[in-house]
Amino acid sequence: MDLVSIRDLEKKDIESILDRAEKISKGDNKSEKVGLKGKILATLFFEPSTRTKLSFQSAALRAGMGYLDFDPEMSSLKKGETFTDTIKVISGYADVLAIRHPKEGSARLAADISDKPVINCGDGANQHPTQTLIDLFVMKKNKGRLANLNVTLMGDLKHARTMRSLLYGLAMFGAKVTLVAPSSLEMDKDYAQEVEAKFKVKFEEQKEPNLAKTDVLYMCRIQQERFADPYEATKTVGKYKIGKEDLKKAKEGMIILNPLPKLNEIDKEVDELEEAKYFEQAHCGPVVRQAVLEYVLRA
Amino acid sequence: MDLVSIRDLEKKDIESILDRAEKISKGDNKSEKVGLKGKILATLFFEPSTRTKLSFQSAALRAGMGYLDFDPEMSSLKKGETFTDTIKVISGYADVLAIRHPKEGSARLAADISDKPVINCGDGANQHPTQTLIDLFVMKKNKGRLANLNVTLMGDLKHARTMRSLLYGLAMFGAKVTLVAPSSLEMDKDYAQEVEAKFKVKFEEQKEPNLAKTDVLYMCRIQQERFADPYEATKTVGKYKIGKEDLKKAKEGMIILNPLPKLNEIDKEVDELEEAKYFEQAHCGPVVRQAVLEYVLRA
Amino acid sequence: MDLVSIRDLEKKDIESILDRAEKISKGDNKSEKVGLKGKILATLFFEPSTRTKLSFQSAALRAGMGYLDFDPEMSSLKKGETFTDTIKVISGYADVLAIRHPKEGSARLAADISDKPVINCGDGANQHPTQTLIDLFVMKKNKGRLANLNVTLMGDLKHARTMRSLLYGLAMFGAKVTLVAPSSLEMDKDYAQEVEAKFKVKFEEQKEPNLAKTDVLYMCRIQQERFADPYEATKTVGKYKIGKEDLKKAKEGMIILNPLPKLNEIDKEVDELEEAKYFEQAHCGPVVRQAVLEYVLRA
Repeated sequence: MDLVSIRDLEKKDIESILDRAEKISKGDNKSEKVGLKGKILATLFFEPSTRTKLSFQSAALRAGMGYLDFDPEMSSLKKGETFTDTIKVISGYADVLAIRHPKEGSARLAADISDKPVINCGDGANQHPTQTLIDLFVMKKNKGRLANLNVTLMGDLKHARTMRSLLYGLAMFGAKVTLVAPSSLEMDKDYAQEVEAKFKVKFEEQKEPNLAKTDVLYMCRIQQERFADPYEATKTVGKYKIGKEDLKKAKEGMIILNPLPKLNEIDKEVDELEEAKYFEQAHCGPVVRQAVLEYVLRA
Repeated sequence: MDLVSIRDLEKKDIESILDRAEKISKGDNKSEKVGLKGKILATLFFEPSTRTKLSFQSAALRAGMGYLDFDPEMSSLKKGETFTDTIKVISGYADVLAIRHPKEGSARLAADISDKPVINCGDGANQHPTQTLIDLFVMKKNKGRLANLNVTLMGDLKHARTMRSLLYGLAMFGAKVTLVAPSSLEMDKDYAQEVEAKFKVKFEEQKEPNLAKTDVLYMCRIQQERFADPYEATKTVGKYKIGKEDLKKAKEGMIILNPLPKLNEIDKEVDELEEAKYFEQAHCGPVVRQAVLEYVLRA
Repeated sequence: MDLVSIRDLEKKDIESILDRAEKISKGDNKSEKVGLKGKILATLFFEPSTRTKLSFQSAALRAGMGYLDFDPEMSSLKKGETFTDTIKVISGYADVLAIRHPKEGSARLAADISDKPVINCGDGANQHPTQTLIDLFVMKKNKGRLANLNVTLMGDLKHARTMRSLLYGLAMFGAKVTLVAPSSLEMDKDYAQEVEAKFKVKFEEQKEPNLAKTDVLYMCRIQQERFADPYEATKTVGKYKIGKEDLKKAKEGMIILNPLPKLNEIDKEVDELEEAKYFEQAHCGPVVRQAVLEYVLRA
């Protein structure tokens, strides 16, 4: 089966993946036994990536699989081959495809074309479901639960590719979500309302984060290029930064997450603090993705 | 031993590779047992490739081998190292080398230099022997035989790198070949006559394909850049296209092959038809190339 | 443990690595047994490389490990991620990191940041310790000893990245080193004196090599770009070349080494002579690096 959107998964599916990831992280590596050994992952990244691609390849190796890396710059796309034909061909070389592409909907298209499982690793600003699984995993790991967890999503909620998937996942598990974004970079209203309706929850919206009431501060960077006016850009980006000083007001045990890469939205000195869990979050990538590989290949 | 040109192989060698590929395709994966497990393939592609490189790497993984990928853009070639020195060095890191290079004769040169088996994956417009093995394999698979099969080769027969190898292979197995190409893009006469003489066969030449008498229509794209006159280009390219309508005149059971990438020489709607076997052809890549790896490493 | 500089190793460590490499080269591949099987090497090359990267990946595969290749051009560095963050993240995906970076000190920085072993594969003109281990290995293999071996280092001793590590290694093992370099490209005096003091040795300096007294001629190329005056450049580069004729004056059994890539500092006709051991030197890469992987992962 494919994993194109977090919506492809029911609550029990996600719970089962997170449980399996936890076992893998504790050394229960039975991936080879469940039939992954010798299987082949193809990574197709049409946009730069460090974390997603390498952690999927790392997951594959840990599961006893091999991987193929499709490089768009050295491929027949250069000779004018269509995306469709490329996907059809590579489906014959691998057992599962992990795809990132700048165009929204491209992962769904690939899943329709391919007779092998397709995992969406980000299609434009649309969905990035395995990142959401990692986010839920690291929250549960650190805070023990997802239900009624106070989660503040802060930054560019319009373009950041992880945010739509994450909002959906958090709502599904009953977390209390607060959205904090500059006026022009807010989460798409229609999408947010749809999620609220589906899970019978209500998101709060604020212009500034209330750290005293936050269990998980999930930050994502604001790209200056999004603003027409450079002065406006600098001012806005400055308002959505977190430093050591800000954390004094934070709730006991609050953790900070970030899908990375981070630029200057988090002061470097924060990296060393207990609150900073974004590197741990990145390090959860391989175990969660290994659980995902088991899930899509077993199904 | 090396595989630089289809001429390096005798008929019985080709038969043995095709037989082995068929067994592999049916799940008889004993590559590991015949000593391939743990061996290393180096892929050296000095030109873009999707199919050939990835399907060789896929074949290596399926055989229990690992692979190294030499990227000319991030190599010491950038520091002025010669092709010869590069080949000598990499021969010490791998057990078999798969090479694509724009210059004709470069694979032969590499084979002379290297003390490891070298597989030619395309040297200019010269030879591409493993593609020919795949082509013969998919024809035999679909049509049950090669002898007396009516094969029409259509398109740019002058520059398309698969065509010289394929013509030789088809003649060797007694297929009846018809060549259909624009005036300026015909198969090299000297080469064709040499092959005719060697195998005591006669190729037909036509300006338009006779689909009613064709068992296998093998198409390869015509690049507009080959023509000085853009008007001439458009007109000519247009004449060598195949659409759904054309297939009504085709012989019962005719199949269409294409080494891919295809551009617009085949209408997209043809992809869904029974006649279209070019994706199946691409998917035969890993099994045939696995058989080739066994062949060159065992010999 | 890390391997950032040859200084990180004591004499007995080096002896143990060289001994192990010799056993590996003779087929005693117990790397899998000592716990390397299934472990993951990440290669991070911020500068072009053929030999070092591929031979490390080859070593990993031979040891039953997998590898991940971080490509700076397709990574989050493009989105502005810092070197520090990149290293932190990748440390969660792999068991050992092999790094090349143009800035001196960057490998040490990476080693400080990462909780996994870091192997320096060249940081600017500073250190390249695994190359030195290979150099010592191939010298010992060909000449039977390192102590009292007459070694002439010739070429650009100022910028060539292998030279500082090598000088240290040779001094440690009691080789008699002669330095031959153009006036502007001499080995850094402070560094040379420090090494002399540490090992109680004395390096000779000459403007021309004395091949009649040389057991090992170690050459490294002089880049024309180093000179402001093109005339001076051509003249100087010409003086530090070796051809067949020069070798007539050489001591019986003298060998020529070169870290490669070589340009025209060695005449092509020399390649075929018995004295030329630079390709053998390159081919020692995987076995020595496999021994290094065992060393840093076992420690």
